[in-house]
Amino acid sequence: MGVVVSLDGERRATPVDRLKALVEADLTAVNEEILTRMRSEVELIPELADYLISSGGKRLRPMLTLAAAKLCGFDGRSHIALAAAVEFIHTATLLHDDVVDGSELRRGKQAANLVYGNQASVLVGDFLFSRSFQLMVTSGHLRVLDILSNAAAVIAEGEVLQLATANNTATTEDTYLEVIQAKTAALFAAATQVGAVVAARPDAEEEALESYGRNLGIAFQLVDDALDYSGNQAKLGKSVGDDFREGKITLPVVLAFRRGSDDERAFWKRTMEKMEQTDADLEEAMKLLEKHGTVDATIERARHYGAIAKDALAIFPESETREVLQELVEFVISRGH
Amino acid sequence: MGVVVSLDGERRATPVDRLKALVEADLTAVNEEILTRMRSEVELIPELADYLISSGGKRLRPMLTLAAAKLCGFDGRSHIALAAAVEFIHTATLLHDDVVDGSELRRGKQAANLVYGNQASVLVGDFLFSRSFQLMVTSGHLRVLDILSNAAAVIAEGEVLQLATANNTATTEDTYLEVIQAKTAALFAAATQVGAVVAARPDAEEEALESYGRNLGIAFQLVDDALDYSGNQAKLGKSVGDDFREGKITLPVVLAFRRGSDDERAFWKRTMEKMEQTDADLEEAMKLLEKHGTVDATIERARHYGAIAKDALAIFPESETREVLQELVEFVISRGH
Repeated sequence: MGVVVSLDGERRATPVDRLKALVEADLTAVNEEILTRMRSEVELIPELADYLISSGGKRLRPMLTLAAAKLCGFDGRSHIALAAAVEFIHTATLLHDDVVDGSELRRGKQAANLVYGNQASVLVGDFLFSRSFQLMVTSGHLRVLDILSNAAAVIAEGEVLQLATANNTATTEDTYLEVIQAKTAALFAAATQVGAVVAARPDAEEEALESYGRNLGIAFQLVDDALDYSGNQAKLGKSVGDDFREGKITLPVVLAFRRGSDDERAFWKRTMEKMEQTDADLEEAMKLLEKHGTVDATIERARHYGAIAKDALAIFPESETREVLQELVEFVISRGH
Repeated sequence: MGVVVSLDGERRATPVDRLKALVEADLTAVNEEILTRMRSEVELIPELADYLISSGGKRLRPMLTLAAAKLCGFDGRSHIALAAAVEFIHTATLLHDDVVDGSELRRGKQAANLVYGNQASVLVGDFLFSRSFQLMVTSGHLRVLDILSNAAAVIAEGEVLQLATANNTATTEDTYLEVIQAKTAALFAAATQVGAVVAARPDAEEEALESYGRNLGIAFQLVDDALDYSGNQAKLGKSVGDDFREGKITLPVVLAFRRGSDDERAFWKRTMEKMEQTDADLEEAMKLLEKHGTVDATIERARHYGAIAKDALAIFPESETREVLQELVEFVISRGH
């Protein structure tokens, strides 16, 4: 088993560290591919892309592609370009998201749209998105292109649905789930599924990896949305209450609205539908979430999807890769707690 | 030869009418494909897409794909999906362009970003862009995917370059050409080239069609930029002087700046670099363009590229399709005159 000794000598190796160690050589190749494909004679492109890509990204999604290919015993090279393509789709989405949300922080730094402007963020996002397709084409796998282009369409669809449900306190848990399955879980699912596809594994293994990625992605987003109302958020370089301030209705609020009194519903409508917020409102919102235990309930929902993700991998024989992927689920859920 | 009788009985059939008549059955199939692929359970998507796609678009680029395939004697079906993909790339680009430019009019109607908001325009653009890749994948041609994904990356690169050169009166004619080759001509070139690729024609024919599309695209954009300073612009449902008001440096201004006196250069710097414009400035700008004949010079440049486009098709045997494609070049140059 690969042991990772962290630099400060105190922190124990996390499943992410172990995952990184497992796919280290491949990840170096992916990072080289990313740097090569970011190049352009139009200087603003590598400058802006580098601002986001080289800074603090965990490379979680491309690592999932690499690990899935490893789990399937793949010994070719085409997974490198695909992992880079997955990261490019993710980065393009982040750039456009931040424009749409008017975000101020991303990965603990000022968001790219504030530094370079919305116009550059939209266009460089388009460039990275196009580059991701060029990378997929180099892989030469039509099925992989099918899977990843479908994922890209589903992501965009999910983002539009999220926009359409913004400021709607009557959003149901089902609609919320639909949004996060599309905007987050679809890319996780595609990232892991293509690992099985390039290795030409049987359908059962491909489906298992798709399910792992999809359920891990749902759990990941649920926890993300819970953390937005958690004091631990600051540690992750994000500000607390972003979703509240943007009127983005996530599960903690969906549940609090449903479990709340008429007065409380009036509070949610004023602050998140009409967007009439005072400085004290975030604190009040967090009190209501606490009162109804909806942040914890959101984490509980994440545990449910996490359990499915772990079980999905059970058809694979025991291996370090399988173990790390399963531990990763627990880590994603417990981060920030 | 197909004769098109226009509804008002007076207007003569233009090359665009003749092109439409030539590929009519295929174009109907393309329009059906477009409508099918625009569908989504997220209502905002077909609504916004329909606002732009169903209204006034000439379908010039998809018609070029269909005509190129016809010129190559193609009798399969895969060009239908590709023509729809080309239109989706174009539409996605328009949506993002209008957000970046803060446009108010598009095809004679209020621009989508004003009706639906910038957020929806960015995200629905992403959706259409993803859909275009799904459509290409259905064609099953890896080379076609390569050509179109390269074109998409070049377009995005051109848009970023245009943004980087905005408000720079010292922009050279070379840089201007680089921008329009990327943002406009690359898609025209890919649209015609793929017609030869699906028909599995020899390299010489593929290159000829690529050259035809590229040079036609350059001529098209040059004329577009000339028309922005022409009174005839109003007929096309666009406002005169948009580029001036946005500080977008196109060839008429590039040339007027270079040919002008120091006082005139100070005028261009004040109005288009510092963006300090008064109501009378557009009229003054148009007087300076007239004085130096730079709108006419821009059209002359377009004639040069148009001539190359026409000659590129000379290797094909005579046919009505070839004739119409060649006449189209003249029509693109003389429109609005």
